[in-house]
Amino acid sequence: MTERVLQYLQEQRETLLDKLNAFLAIPSVSTMSAHNEDVKKAASFVESYLEDIGFTTVERIETKGHPVVYAEWMGAEGAPTVLVYGHYDVQPADPLELWESEPFEPTIRNGRLFARGASDDKGQVFMHLAVFEAFMKTEGRLPVNVKVCIEGEEEIGSEHLYEVLQDNQSRFDADFSVISDSGMVEAGQPTILYGLKGFTGLEVTVRGPNRDLHSGLYGGAVKNPAMALAHLLSSMKNEEEVVTVAGFYDEVEPLSERERTLMNASPGEDYCETTGVPEVTPEKGYTAKEHTMARPTLEVNGIFGGYQGEGTKTIIPASVTAKLTCRLVPGQDPEHIQDLLVKHLEAHTPRGTTLSITREPLSARAYKVDPEHPLLQKAAASYAKAFGKEAVFVRMGGSIPVVETIDQLYGMPVVLLGFGTPEDNLHSPNESFPLDSYDRGMETLVHYWQAVATK
Amino acid sequence: MTERVLQYLQEQRETLLDKLNAFLAIPSVSTMSAHNEDVKKAASFVESYLEDIGFTTVERIETKGHPVVYAEWMGAEGAPTVLVYGHYDVQPADPLELWESEPFEPTIRNGRLFARGASDDKGQVFMHLAVFEAFMKTEGRLPVNVKVCIEGEEEIGSEHLYEVLQDNQSRFDADFSVISDSGMVEAGQPTILYGLKGFTGLEVTVRGPNRDLHSGLYGGAVKNPAMALAHLLSSMKNEEEVVTVAGFYDEVEPLSERERTLMNASPGEDYCETTGVPEVTPEKGYTAKEHTMARPTLEVNGIFGGYQGEGTKTIIPASVTAKLTCRLVPGQDPEHIQDLLVKHLEAHTPRGTTLSITREPLSARAYKVDPEHPLLQKAAASYAKAFGKEAVFVRMGGSIPVVETIDQLYGMPVVLLGFGTPEDNLHSPNESFPLDSYDRGMETLVHYWQAVATK
Repeated sequence: MTERVLQYLQEQRETLLDKLNAFLAIPSVSTMSAHNEDVKKAASFVESYLEDIGFTTVERIETKGHPVVYAEWMGAEGAPTVLVYGHYDVQPADPLELWESEPFEPTIRNGRLFARGASDDKGQVFMHLAVFEAFMKTEGRLPVNVKVCIEGEEEIGSEHLYEVLQDNQSRFDADFSVISDSGMVEAGQPTILYGLKGFTGLEVTVRGPNRDLHSGLYGGAVKNPAMALAHLLSSMKNEEEVVTVAGFYDEVEPLSERERTLMNASPGEDYCETTGVPEVTPEKGYTAKEHTMARPTLEVNGIFGGYQGEGTKTIIPASVTAKLTCRLVPGQDPEHIQDLLVKHLEAHTPRGTTLSITREPLSARAYKVDPEHPLLQKAAASYAKAFGKEAVFVRMGGSIPVVETIDQLYGMPVVLLGFGTPEDNLHSPNESFPLDSYDRGMETLVHYWQAVATK
Repeated sequence: MTERVLQYLQEQRETLLDKLNAFLAIPSVSTMSAHNEDVKKAASFVESYLEDIGFTTVERIETKGHPVVYAEWMGAEGAPTVLVYGHYDVQPADPLELWESEPFEPTIRNGRLFARGASDDKGQVFMHLAVFEAFMKTEGRLPVNVKVCIEGEEEIGSEHLYEVLQDNQSRFDADFSVISDSGMVEAGQPTILYGLKGFTGLEVTVRGPNRDLHSGLYGGAVKNPAMALAHLLSSMKNEEEVVTVAGFYDEVEPLSERERTLMNASPGEDYCETTGVPEVTPEKGYTAKEHTMARPTLEVNGIFGGYQGEGTKTIIPASVTAKLTCRLVPGQDPEHIQDLLVKHLEAHTPRGTTLSITREPLSARAYKVDPEHPLLQKAAASYAKAFGKEAVFVRMGGSIPVVETIDQLYGMPVVLLGFGTPEDNLHSPNESFPLDSYDRGMETLVHYWQAVATK
């Protein structure tokens, strides 16, 4: 059975690539209202494709924003049901002048397909559709029951998807979910991403005098808000990268020796080389890989106040602001951590100042599946068959809010089957996707659907 | 003799005010090349006036910028020679819409003369000229030998004045100098300003990665430059406002009990009321008055880096910058203090970062005269006669670079006879000068020239 499906994909390769190119040619930029019609066109493309394949229910769920395309094929009696999520919208292409070929005229160069959305996420969505087509055309059925949810607002925060997921729980419910919207640690290296970080944040403004003051006439009487902010931030994290906010680590799940070994064994970038820093500075007691993948962080994303022009202006600034965000790990509750940050700031407010705190309204819990979970072990085996290389197991410091939402709402495991590579230039000019990932990724999916067909 | 001079000023009050208004009506904005001709007109006004009064040498010393007007009257044999400094240029008037009357159409309201330059410094320069006129018209002579130096670049840093002072030392040399370009602690309160602070500064940029990084993918591997800067700044001043840079206080002259008493007895603003801060925060062991007047400071004038827009952008900034300046007290050498700051920053560079430091090229030493100096005691007595109130003795946290230059180049005491008030709105819309200060200030000058006529 596998052979015939794989043969179909090989024989139809040119036809399928032409079809993918037609999908990528639609400039479905969700952030720009000028592209609203294009976004709809991309939704229609997905709908028609699913209908052509033979999905029995194909519908467009309208929202206040861009529609969600839903479809299902439930003919695999006794087999599990999977929810496949993806998105058909893309980031803007600007700055256009930096593209070597037109962002919406897909072009192959050096074994890569260049186009906006080639990797994130139209290319990977298309791989799923093509694999479903191959099964249906050769076997007349899919190995598992499939529900498909492809949204059009991922690049603008999936605002309306959450409502749809909440309002249609029986429709979207499944045994597990598969998402191909991420990448591998390096090209050709099968990667099982089994954990994502959560997220919370806030903005704090330290206010001193009611206006910028002459530093000569008031220096010594009035607290300098920028120096006060420096003391305040220093009170939150020490020079060994340990967050010193009371309670911050209380609920953090300890990192097992086995996980530490897995993480440290995974290939990864040489941070000094890729970022130019003179040395890495992880939390005391942890490696850089362990900290980025599995320990919580507190970062200052921006800081500003007072005179920022050329030369010197001898003032005491009226106020200074810092933007702070945390990446959280399993066990940490985002709202609770935000509370702890606020409490810490209020308790450490420097004398002679007042604070204004704005809580970041968005937040997310961390997500983690046991790497020993059969669904992940089967994914690793499928990857290995297709790529000829054992999979590595990693966690990621980033957050994918939809993963957390599916986890929270449906309590189902989410399997992240990503085929991107670090060189894909997501969100940047010259986005591309390696054809090797495209071919072997589809092969991985073929193996995977068969591997998970029996519970 | 005094009576006749004072009577002249009274009788000619209207004529003199008209003349002052003509001077103020010239928009001699030195910072704007569009006003170059006006700046020259103001210089000509001063020249003509000095010639009319009967100064024997009146010349315009050309510079690469705006000219310095020099004049002398040396007919007081046996009496000391005084160098009177002032400036005929003014700050720009914008934002114009905030002025209640036109900035260059002098207008009297509520006992104040409103015009750009009314206080800083054309009004106070004019008072000197009018007093010289009164002496010459009534007595035919001045009580002391007078050299006058009125420049046109004070508001743009007096760049060319320093060359002129250096190149013409025998011409400008005198027994002491008098400058009326400052103010009283409050309207009607004679104030002897016997000390000014010095100044130095630098800009420091903490550099981390070679670009802004994704806080999820790199947080935990790479040092956050904003947090690093917070630690760096915190290492320079503690929460008790004590500068913790090694050697910073080594050369500071201790503050005598007598001076502390003088300072704390002087009237001054209620900082909480005027600036809105919840409490004052002077250096541990000192009052706010003592710290602002006589203890050195280290201030952050501005800080910036990373994301400064609305909402959240989860990045680790590539770099963050702080602008720092110090106000210095007698004993501290600005270049040496700058060296200490640089040394401290280099020694405390956070791991995983590099620093770029730009030294502020301008600097100034602090200036101080013994408050017991006869020239100051005579000034206090003259003020008291004119204002009917004992003078207070204060130092100021600000810097007046020309004072330090005259002190350094000529080694002569500089007597700061200022008549401005805190309500004058220097450099701001609706600059004004109280007519009470104008009348009594001229009376003070009449008394003073006679008091200092005998060595």
